Amino acid sequence: MADPSLSVQVGQTATFSKTVTDQDIRDFARVSGDTQPIHLDESYAGQTRFGQRVAHGVLTLSVVSAALGTKLPGPNEDVIYLSQNLRFTRPVYVGDTITATVEVTAVNPDRRQVTVSTTCVNQRGEGLLTGEAVVLLDPHPFASS
Amino acid sequence: MADPSLSVQVGQTATFSKTVTDQDIRDFARVSGDTQPIHLDESYAGQTRFGQRVAHGVLTLSVVSAALGTKLPGPNEDVIYLSQNLRFTRPVYVGDTITATVEVTAVNPDRRQVTVSTTCVNQRGEGLLTGEAVVLLDPHPFASS
Repeated sequence: MADPSLSVQVGQTATFSKTVTDQDIRDFARVSGDTQPIHLDESYAGQTRFGQRVAHGVLTLSVVSAALGTKLPGPNEDVIYLSQNLRFTRPVYVGDTITATVEVTAVNPDRRQVTVSTTCVNQRGEGLLTGEAVVLLDPHPFASS
Repeated sequence: MADPSLSVQVGQTATFSKTVTDQDIRDFARVSGDTQPIHLDESYAGQTRFGQRVAHGVLTLSVVSAALGTKLPGPNEDVIYLSQNLRFTRPVYVGDTITATVEVTAVNPDRRQVTVSTTCVNQRGEGLLTGEAVVLLDPHPFASS
C-alpha cells in the first residue's frame, strides 16, 4: 500500500542538464582538494591519452545529485542520498553538457526509500556514467499535511 | 608478474583531510546545480531532522577523489576514476573535517587497474561513507622511464 505522501512512483523520471565550464572545474578542484594536473593544466593534459583537460568524475556524479535533489522530489520532500553505485564510461571536457537522468525503479513506502537508475550522457548522447542510487524522501518538517 | 612501473601494492593506504566550509557548500551547490534548501538555507534546515545545514553527499565523496588523485599515485601516474560503490552513513555539517582513507585491496598490473576500499570519517572518527572504487593508473606521457 503506497503512502500517499510519497510523491514518486516506479517509472517516473527526472533530468538535469549542466554545461561544464573552466570555472566549474577549478571550483571543484578547490572544494574537493583534487588538484590533479589532468584536470587543471592544459599543457600537461594535452600530452595525456585525453589530449585536453578532463572534468573530475565526481563532478559528473554531482549532476546526478542535482537531478535527485531538485527534480525528483515533490515540493514537500527533502532528498537524502543513501547510496550510489556507478561506473564512469567516458571523459567530460570543458564545454561539454552533462544531462543526468534518474528513473525510479523501486519504491519502499514504509521506509520512504526510492531506488533509481542513474545515467549521464553528453551533448552527443554518449554515455558518461551509469549506475543506481537509493535515496530517502523526507517530508518537509513544516509541510502542510 | 607485477608491472614494475605500477607504483601501488595491496595494503597500501592514502588519506586526505578537508574541513568543510560554508563557502565549499555554496560552491558545490553552484557547480553541481544541487540547490536543495537543506544544504543552503539555515532556517529551513533548522527544522529538518538534522537541525542544521548538511553538506551534499557527493561533496563527501569528492574528498575520496582527492585522496585517490593526489595521495595514492606515484609521481609519474595519472589516476582515472573508473567506478565507485558507496553508502553514506552519517551527515556532514559546516565545520566538520572529513578524512578520506583509501586502501588498495587488489591490483591488476596488466590492465593497470587498482581496487581500493574507500572510507570517510569525521573529526570524531564517526563513519560518513564506506565503499569501494576502481581506478586506472595511467603513466604520465612524458615520464622518464
